[in-house]
Amino acid sequence: MSHSILNIDEVIHQKVRLAIMTQLVSVKKMDFTEIKQSLNLTDGNLSAHISMLEKNNYVRVEKSFSDKKPLTTISITPKGRQAFKNYIELLKKVIDDES
Amino acid sequence: MSHSILNIDEVIHQKVRLAIMTQLVSVKKMDFTEIKQSLNLTDGNLSAHISMLEKNNYVRVEKSFSDKKPLTTISITPKGRQAFKNYIELLKKVIDDES
Repeated sequence: MSHSILNIDEVIHQKVRLAIMTQLVSVKKMDFTEIKQSLNLTDGNLSAHISMLEKNNYVRVEKSFSDKKPLTTISITPKGRQAFKNYIELLKKVIDDES
Repeated sequence: MSHSILNIDEVIHQKVRLAIMTQLVSVKKMDFTEIKQSLNLTDGNLSAHISMLEKNNYVRVEKSFSDKKPLTTISITPKGRQAFKNYIELLKKVIDDES
């Protein structure tokens, strides 16, 4: 079992991205500011992690305007949802072995 | 929930150390070479991660000789066992929320 931990999806395993994905998988869509505030992150830190998720096609980023203010909306993609599911399945095996 | 992921124990969360701790929590004691081979790591990589675990008092490292060859034995400490338990409890919450 422990060997397969080394194959874990590091895009999701990193704790900030795990927190982001955990939110998105529930609510499907959030705006940048909501995520930033809920996790108490800086713009730069959140941007870097969203970029990594976007690069892997785990999230889609849409820029629009709301009341003339720019609005950035993040949503989980089908690929991201599947990757999250696989990640949780692997964690379950770790936990089932140890608890 | 997702906010508390940011408080996860990063000493254990890193995948190589998670794999090491998952082994040690079951068998209590392993020698360096056994861990290295089971996880297919280099000496340097394993040493760095064992050092990090030792610095946090999660494992104890004992050096001895067996048939005149140096033998390095790694065992989990009570503090390490408790930290691993806490880590698994937090992961369980993530999984229970999402599955």
